[in-house]
Amino acid sequence: MKQLYVVSTGPGDPNLLAPQAKMAINDATDLVAYGLYLELLGDDIRNKTQHDLPLGQEIERARLSLNLAASGKTTALISSGDIGIFAMATLVFELLDRAEQGLENNPEWFDIDIQVIPGISAMQAAASRVGATLGHDFCAISLSDLLTPWETIETRIHAAASADFVISFYNPVSKKRRWQLDKAKHIILQHRDPNTPVVLGKNLTRADEHIRIITLEQLEVDDVDMLTLVQIGSSHTKHIKIGNHDWVYTPRGYQKKMTQETTT
Amino acid sequence: MKQLYVVSTGPGDPNLLAPQAKMAINDATDLVAYGLYLELLGDDIRNKTQHDLPLGQEIERARLSLNLAASGKTTALISSGDIGIFAMATLVFELLDRAEQGLENNPEWFDIDIQVIPGISAMQAAASRVGATLGHDFCAISLSDLLTPWETIETRIHAAASADFVISFYNPVSKKRRWQLDKAKHIILQHRDPNTPVVLGKNLTRADEHIRIITLEQLEVDDVDMLTLVQIGSSHTKHIKIGNHDWVYTPRGYQKKMTQETTT
Repeated sequence: MKQLYVVSTGPGDPNLLAPQAKMAINDATDLVAYGLYLELLGDDIRNKTQHDLPLGQEIERARLSLNLAASGKTTALISSGDIGIFAMATLVFELLDRAEQGLENNPEWFDIDIQVIPGISAMQAAASRVGATLGHDFCAISLSDLLTPWETIETRIHAAASADFVISFYNPVSKKRRWQLDKAKHIILQHRDPNTPVVLGKNLTRADEHIRIITLEQLEVDDVDMLTLVQIGSSHTKHIKIGNHDWVYTPRGYQKKMTQETTT
Repeated sequence: MKQLYVVSTGPGDPNLLAPQAKMAINDATDLVAYGLYLELLGDDIRNKTQHDLPLGQEIERARLSLNLAASGKTTALISSGDIGIFAMATLVFELLDRAEQGLENNPEWFDIDIQVIPGISAMQAAASRVGATLGHDFCAISLSDLLTPWETIETRIHAAASADFVISFYNPVSKKRRWQLDKAKHIILQHRDPNTPVVLGKNLTRADEHIRIITLEQLEVDDVDMLTLVQIGSSHTKHIKIGNHDWVYTPRGYQKKMTQETTT
């Protein structure tokens, strides 16, 4: 059977990599990924054929994965975090869809057995490291306007801010995209207090993890890079200090129930 | 050191349980959970003291976990999926916050070392099983109005639907809550095509997994129970058939780039 694994490797800590992801990588002879993700896997992948395509060649990476699998090589297409969230998985299905429409000229893709293996995404890693920021309704928005018109992104930021979602921004900046995060900040400030807690998480769960808890007002584009997850609290999100430890949480609304307990 | 692990066990398949979660459960002497989640862990937990509190006693479960840990027992508070997403993690911090304010009378809680371990949530399991529904901007909304006013929930559904987010509904119905999902459906229909793909996922990644791909128009409350994840596609989400296999994906917007490739 021809096999393509579409594999998530989680936020970075090998102990947050699902056994199913590890089994898929072990089973594969060919790995397709952006180099950084392959490095994170360490020694386990030395005897595999590695296809390291640079950033920007996402379509080529997905197409190569399908071609390798179709040629009979058990293949793993790999992304960090959850490969289903703003990552490579959807490209595999876009290409299959195009092939079905006769636009890709690759009917042999249709015999491939495809298994998508989910993983822990950056927004979840950030939430867990600072407490429980995703305890109530939340959304995730990519700030990259390379593939999505900025007007669409802006509409989503407005909607999410006005309806009080916790907001996780993926792809907040890049070397060329610098103004979008500041624009997003000012849209949110129209709806939310300047003191709203904001979490900046970089290299989450890795040895060089760097996490900052700031306020919405303090959010500056220079403190954020393309590997940073930016998480904006809702109007209910709280930043607390217990002993020497800072925590951020978004309550689900039990406070009323607790108060009733205390007073009755 | 006094230790409380706040542990996610993922959607159900033991191979989607992170090693870090397993290590925490192994390390604990006391496990606190709703019984169903403990059963999923199987034989590994036979020699642990199990504190199985029923649904509805969430505050008690969190308080018991903090008390056990404070008494010196290494404790794991456990939820399936991601314990940080609509689950128990945030209650631990709400209680700590109350204690800090003098409302809980438990200063010994402040010595506990707390580690939150994230996991794969139902929306991710659903996405991976049908393809890549979360490939672009998405949100998660709990339809439970036990702790959140329905007006707030409705505002969020309107916002998410109008701004074209993929929407995952958690807690879509319960034995007593029957009308919310239908109301949500009709709000979304104001903004989205009746043929929008909808994924219903029950017991995801488990032996008795049941997944249906329907349309928004076909969504009926009787097809959904409290263990079902309901995922509504965006206006771009596509349901495709490749061979005998159905897939659902939300494109990131590479289509334009692919078309340029083909025509140039």
